[in-house]
Amino acid sequence: MIELNDLFDYHKYIYQNSDYFKFSLDSVLLAEFVNIKKNDKRILDLCSGNVPVPLILVDKYQGLDITGVEIQKEIYDLGIKSIEYNNVNNIRLINDDVKNIPNVLDKASFDIVTVNPPYFKVYDEKSFNDNDIKAIARHEIKLTLDDTLLVASKMLKNQGYLYMVHRPERLADIILGLNKYNFGLKRVVSVYDKINGDCSMILIEAIYNGKDYVKIDNPIYLDKYTSYQNIFRK
Amino acid sequence: MIELNDLFDYHKYIYQNSDYFKFSLDSVLLAEFVNIKKNDKRILDLCSGNVPVPLILVDKYQGLDITGVEIQKEIYDLGIKSIEYNNVNNIRLINDDVKNIPNVLDKASFDIVTVNPPYFKVYDEKSFNDNDIKAIARHEIKLTLDDTLLVASKMLKNQGYLYMVHRPERLADIILGLNKYNFGLKRVVSVYDKINGDCSMILIEAIYNGKDYVKIDNPIYLDKYTSYQNIFRK
Repeated sequence: MIELNDLFDYHKYIYQNSDYFKFSLDSVLLAEFVNIKKNDKRILDLCSGNVPVPLILVDKYQGLDITGVEIQKEIYDLGIKSIEYNNVNNIRLINDDVKNIPNVLDKASFDIVTVNPPYFKVYDEKSFNDNDIKAIARHEIKLTLDDTLLVASKMLKNQGYLYMVHRPERLADIILGLNKYNFGLKRVVSVYDKINGDCSMILIEAIYNGKDYVKIDNPIYLDKYTSYQNIFRK
Repeated sequence: MIELNDLFDYHKYIYQNSDYFKFSLDSVLLAEFVNIKKNDKRILDLCSGNVPVPLILVDKYQGLDITGVEIQKEIYDLGIKSIEYNNVNNIRLINDDVKNIPNVLDKASFDIVTVNPPYFKVYDEKSFNDNDIKAIARHEIKLTLDDTLLVASKMLKNQGYLYMVHRPERLADIILGLNKYNFGLKRVVSVYDKINGDCSMILIEAIYNGKDYVKIDNPIYLDKYTSYQNIFRK
């Protein structure tokens, strides 16, 4: 069923379909984690879903030009409805496979890439079918971590920044992939539901054609917040 | 000046020379972080210094057989004095270069390797002289991270565990090195002086010839403890 929901405490609304999946806190934290610098303008949001990250970024910052990419038509349609409802004219959403993006947009042209990719490895492809919308969003059926990092490296300008949310158990895969595509890891934040809870999420900042010099930021304990606005130190 | 100090709240004493360096909390946390399993017996402690890690481990566990390695003769001598003073007979200390250990001890014979290695990269070799004892302990003058991981991989049994303390800014180097020498990363803990302080230290658990599947444990805030005994969840 299609619903129109508040996008937390941002001044935006988002169309969702509870039969598919709903945007999650992961995307809100990813959008908050992004560090927009003075001359950053062109943002590419991969695996956009129903565009929570672009909607939050245009709510927080002026003058951005954001391109989102969503492969699944049903989700893309919700994203378009949300963009229209909020009457924003600086978010463009493309219904395409992320792997095809270097063929349709200018390479090396983005200041920032954001991505909330499928988290889980696929061990048995037969356990999914091709129109399982939730599974495609959560599992690496149509897009792997390696694909994601390759595309990010092609689309970013030299010294452009990648912001990604992912699962802690993939930390080694992430760092090996970043190294493979010539990213330097800059910042890691681990996210816990509460003190002494399990780490459920990590946020990664990396620079294309930059050196590794990692800052492990303060962890985030979600139960301490009622609003997620500006919870990250810059 | 040589002093005989308490080893925190363990039942051991340690000789130190304040002109060189003193054992640090890093070593205490490393020793606490080690997870000794039922059949673990043979432990190799690289970069032993004045042997804080072996002294803590024999205080906590029965029946271990620990070999320490320390390249610097002045520090080695303090380690030997500490072993004798505490009257422990299951710690052997070798005065040798870690890189030479695969030539003098049986390879693939240790259940666990522990190491508190030099943390800092050397950008200008000329800024150190050859008998700068503190600098050799802290900087990668005589031993790099790559050397350390290579030796650990040679000395560990199949599926043996490596425990290392290091600096957060080296996280990517560590994970790339672990992958190079066929370790799987298992556990990462970040250590902070206090809530909202900077992360000053990370603890790493990895398995030789194992797969990456990372658990990011709860961070440690040092100011919350008056004793460090058993501060890690197993």
